[in-house]
Amino acid sequence: MVKEDNFTQSETDVLIIGAGPAGLMAAYWMARYGVNARIIDKRDTKVFQGHADGLRARTLELFDSMGFQHRVIQEGTISTVVNIWVPSTQGELVRQASINISRTDESPFYNTCLTQGRIERFIIDSIREHSDLDVEYSVIAETLDYDEELSNDPNSYPITVQVQALGEDDTKVEARCEAAGNEVTRDNLLPDDWADIVPRKKSRKTQVETIKAKYLIGCDGAHSWTRKQLKIPVEGSTTDHVWGVIDVVPLSDFPDVRRLSVVNSATGTILVVPRERSLVRFYVPVQTCEAGAADRFDRSKITPDLIRARVQAIFAPFTFDFKECSWWTVYQVGQRISAQSTKDNRIFLAGDAVHTHSPKMGLGMNMSLQDGFNVGWKIALAVAGILKPEVLETYALERHPLAEMLLEFDRNWSPMFNDRKPEGVDTKASDMALIAERFEDFADGWKVFYPPSSLVRKAEDNVEFAFARHMIPGERVRPVKLRNQADGTPLWTTRLLESDGRFRILVLAGDIRNPMQRQRIETLNRALAEQTGSSISPLGRYMEIPGQFKNPVDVLTVHASPWKEVEFFDFPEILRPFDPVKGWAYDMIWCDDACISDRYCDGKAYEKWGVDQVLGALVVVRPDQYIGWVAD
Amino acid sequence: MVKEDNFTQSETDVLIIGAGPAGLMAAYWMARYGVNARIIDKRDTKVFQGHADGLRARTLELFDSMGFQHRVIQEGTISTVVNIWVPSTQGELVRQASINISRTDESPFYNTCLTQGRIERFIIDSIREHSDLDVEYSVIAETLDYDEELSNDPNSYPITVQVQALGEDDTKVEARCEAAGNEVTRDNLLPDDWADIVPRKKSRKTQVETIKAKYLIGCDGAHSWTRKQLKIPVEGSTTDHVWGVIDVVPLSDFPDVRRLSVVNSATGTILVVPRERSLVRFYVPVQTCEAGAADRFDRSKITPDLIRARVQAIFAPFTFDFKECSWWTVYQVGQRISAQSTKDNRIFLAGDAVHTHSPKMGLGMNMSLQDGFNVGWKIALAVAGILKPEVLETYALERHPLAEMLLEFDRNWSPMFNDRKPEGVDTKASDMALIAERFEDFADGWKVFYPPSSLVRKAEDNVEFAFARHMIPGERVRPVKLRNQADGTPLWTTRLLESDGRFRILVLAGDIRNPMQRQRIETLNRALAEQTGSSISPLGRYMEIPGQFKNPVDVLTVHASPWKEVEFFDFPEILRPFDPVKGWAYDMIWCDDACISDRYCDGKAYEKWGVDQVLGALVVVRPDQYIGWVAD
Repeated sequence: MVKEDNFTQSETDVLIIGAGPAGLMAAYWMARYGVNARIIDKRDTKVFQGHADGLRARTLELFDSMGFQHRVIQEGTISTVVNIWVPSTQGELVRQASINISRTDESPFYNTCLTQGRIERFIIDSIREHSDLDVEYSVIAETLDYDEELSNDPNSYPITVQVQALGEDDTKVEARCEAAGNEVTRDNLLPDDWADIVPRKKSRKTQVETIKAKYLIGCDGAHSWTRKQLKIPVEGSTTDHVWGVIDVVPLSDFPDVRRLSVVNSATGTILVVPRERSLVRFYVPVQTCEAGAADRFDRSKITPDLIRARVQAIFAPFTFDFKECSWWTVYQVGQRISAQSTKDNRIFLAGDAVHTHSPKMGLGMNMSLQDGFNVGWKIALAVAGILKPEVLETYALERHPLAEMLLEFDRNWSPMFNDRKPEGVDTKASDMALIAERFEDFADGWKVFYPPSSLVRKAEDNVEFAFARHMIPGERVRPVKLRNQADGTPLWTTRLLESDGRFRILVLAGDIRNPMQRQRIETLNRALAEQTGSSISPLGRYMEIPGQFKNPVDVLTVHASPWKEVEFFDFPEILRPFDPVKGWAYDMIWCDDACISDRYCDGKAYEKWGVDQVLGALVVVRPDQYIGWVAD
Repeated sequence: MVKEDNFTQSETDVLIIGAGPAGLMAAYWMARYGVNARIIDKRDTKVFQGHADGLRARTLELFDSMGFQHRVIQEGTISTVVNIWVPSTQGELVRQASINISRTDESPFYNTCLTQGRIERFIIDSIREHSDLDVEYSVIAETLDYDEELSNDPNSYPITVQVQALGEDDTKVEARCEAAGNEVTRDNLLPDDWADIVPRKKSRKTQVETIKAKYLIGCDGAHSWTRKQLKIPVEGSTTDHVWGVIDVVPLSDFPDVRRLSVVNSATGTILVVPRERSLVRFYVPVQTCEAGAADRFDRSKITPDLIRARVQAIFAPFTFDFKECSWWTVYQVGQRISAQSTKDNRIFLAGDAVHTHSPKMGLGMNMSLQDGFNVGWKIALAVAGILKPEVLETYALERHPLAEMLLEFDRNWSPMFNDRKPEGVDTKASDMALIAERFEDFADGWKVFYPPSSLVRKAEDNVEFAFARHMIPGERVRPVKLRNQADGTPLWTTRLLESDGRFRILVLAGDIRNPMQRQRIETLNRALAEQTGSSISPLGRYMEIPGQFKNPVDVLTVHASPWKEVEFFDFPEILRPFDPVKGWAYDMIWCDDACISDRYCDGKAYEKWGVDQVLGALVVVRPDQYIGWVAD
């Protein structure tokens, strides 16, 4: 590091710009791998109240693999039904439909609402648990230089970013607490968030620093500075609809104010989203601009009082008011997508920097988190030398089509909320149900449609393998609860497949009481033994196994014999290797058998996975729980 | 506060001596109530590794009501079976029995192992969340004066304790980290524990302080200083058995090393307890003193190597070794009970200060936690002026008989581990099962047998009320999962009955679709309305409702109509009161109906409680989830 007065120069393997959901997820992987990385943010704190709040069950599955889903469940509010309210023929609002939206066969988790501020808290805590990496706030990127000629040398630093770290004095803390009229106080913050604000009461001088980096991830939001520096165009447009969003403790006699609801009254449409700590979020149309005048609405005219009045009008004759408002904002719906997600696979865009859309599907934060998760593990493994840089191509290949699908969904879904009462309101619930159904797998995150690549080998018909019908390469491992063979404890696969950066070979051993099956396992055993220390096809083509990372490929065995009828030591040693300090690998042999002490451990994993109980199968799972490769 | 050089004098309502499990639980209540309290400990840190580790499901129910059971579940290891190993007729060790010890019909939680250090962490975090109360470490109580003449005036300070706060310098931190040969490093601590050690690197001068207190709780362990000052005698004796305890990552081919097991080999008996983070605890007999020479065993001769050799001898022909040992100790079994648990209901003893026994039942920490919990809420409510001081008599009334029962259990249970191979080892498993069965309800904490008192009104036959057969006054509310009427979310009653200090009237409203039942609820409604602001029989006799505490009595309604067939607003307003800021009390109406999204929300609450689905019942629950009073 060169230092000269207030000017310093430094190198880092990975620079992340923006510490929102996407940036923090990417940083998580740097922390897990001990990658030399930095994460900067122009804001002076993380988010505390409001902002995004919708978490799909799939996102909680990822959180489980990162070790903090229990905190989300403890604090968040779940929604298992959505209710549609429309005017009756007499003009009164009536509950037209109550639609079940929980799919307990698909996931152990639920659609959950919790402020983005808490999600950022949990990811930051997880990053700190694994490393000394911490977000650098009040640091603004000012210039970006990219040397294309260096792009083919993975050890080069083709990226140069000059940043300015703002000076700060004591008064800044108070200013932080009053940002955007949404006051943050000790009373409305949880203690760990508050503790994070207080110690930063220190002064520093404004400093300029030049950071050279191998990789850059721009997670800097809808108005992405990184994207603008790269001159990547954005497609799509701002709509003419302006919405208010408000988080309040409602005073209302509307019967479903604590249930996820869409209210389509003659006066307009609002979305009711119950939240943590007695809060309810209301999305309310506050203005429709004149056609062609989309850029000219006056944001300053929208106030909480105006939003209150709009809710009152739409809710009538039900009452509505509030005294406590923890957060509010106003936004103009934009539906835009960045033309590219990467520059030469050295600079990446993730989250809102790629896609912006209507927030009313509870999808935005999920997409951003999953973008950051996807690009994060790949860069971390490439920098660590475990994966060849070529795999970085799969980021755009996998995530960009999803961004397009998101925009398509939004173009279908968003008008449901934009129009004033259309002809025949009573069709709305069924229209919404139709669209919801069409996009269900995508919206819930059950399916991501990742295409064939160096990390995904599809079946010939591009759909399924007969011996593992519901283990589709490019899709996630469907969560099941398994019993550990050694101690009998049930565990969800979402936690078992920990996001620690390892590829995993799932040996679905079938019923090992069957002598033929035991023979097949022995054969596999020998094949694996021969490959130990070398590469395992087909991953090996893209994977290098350096000395500093032990076991980038893990082998997990899941058998289908009754738990009590086999013993841990019945399995070949390579499936449960011995470590001279840690002993036998008790965490590597699992059993698909029902456990009388746990109603969710029902012995149906093989059935859910479409795998034969006797013959089993072999599945390679990527570090992000997606299936890479399946064999019998 | 009088201050003169290094000598200060101060007053506090409650002084707690000892910040182990019992002391912290008591302090939790002071934090929840904002009671002016202090908690001191002569140790210089909390526990980090080892020590007690067994948590009964009942204890996790309390943790749920305190808001942190999810952290215990995330980190702990559960045991659902216990395995008994004995020599076969050929002399080889064989698994004789595998006994299911989980009772999923009784509790949502399991017997769980997690070091006392983490439990202390969670309680301390919870205390900090609710108050500025913090443990004062390295503070030693030196003299205790008690003025009996003041004992009848609840506002007096009859207790005077002089304490010495030890000076500390930087070197102390290193010393702390190496206490008792059990090294604590950043590697073997979780980040939040480590963060708690580091900032305390500050010096202070040794200071003497005189603290005057209204109440004193001595939670200062088996050698309780408080008890000695009061000259309360201890009954019982030290046995002649010496045990080693060791927490290691085992290197062993014993098949059940990750399962709770009792191994009765010809050479001796060991207890195998699987723990968090790959650790396994072994209880090993290391010496049997000569009769009458119980006090003379030489502790210094016991080492981890000696314990290792003993385990190897008992496990043979199975192998045993270890390289990682996180904690170890050696102890001589004592079975002792303090003659009294209180002095004039102004000074109380709790935890090991009252009872010491063999640790091999996994009961000690649970008893201590529950002692502290019991005395804590009563003192907090008495100091806050909500309960009359007379209710403090119920502490000894409720907890002392349990201490006696614990000792009796231990006298029956402990010999199972003490003897060398007795005649016919194959009877041992059945003997153990018999004793376990006899004490099951007590050991699991399902039953506490609290007697009639000002806080417990028993049925005439002292057993059950016909209209609520399994709601026994003096016992806990059996946990069930209910659906919130307003938002449909399922919640365990263990969390719903939050430990916030409130008494709760459970209105089991039955089926409110039934007109007669609705009529009865209306009548109750009027009766409650008339009593609002005044006392509610029979609690009223002992309860004062001062201005500063709103709603020390809460009303929760649980009805048995199908969730979808009734609405929140169908219930009388007094059951869901309106607050001008917080709105309607959506958290006060609950439903006993199955929820398709949750296998544990099965609509069987009324059945488990023995309450008629149509007629319902009325139950008064104390702040500690125990039932005080039942009516139809």
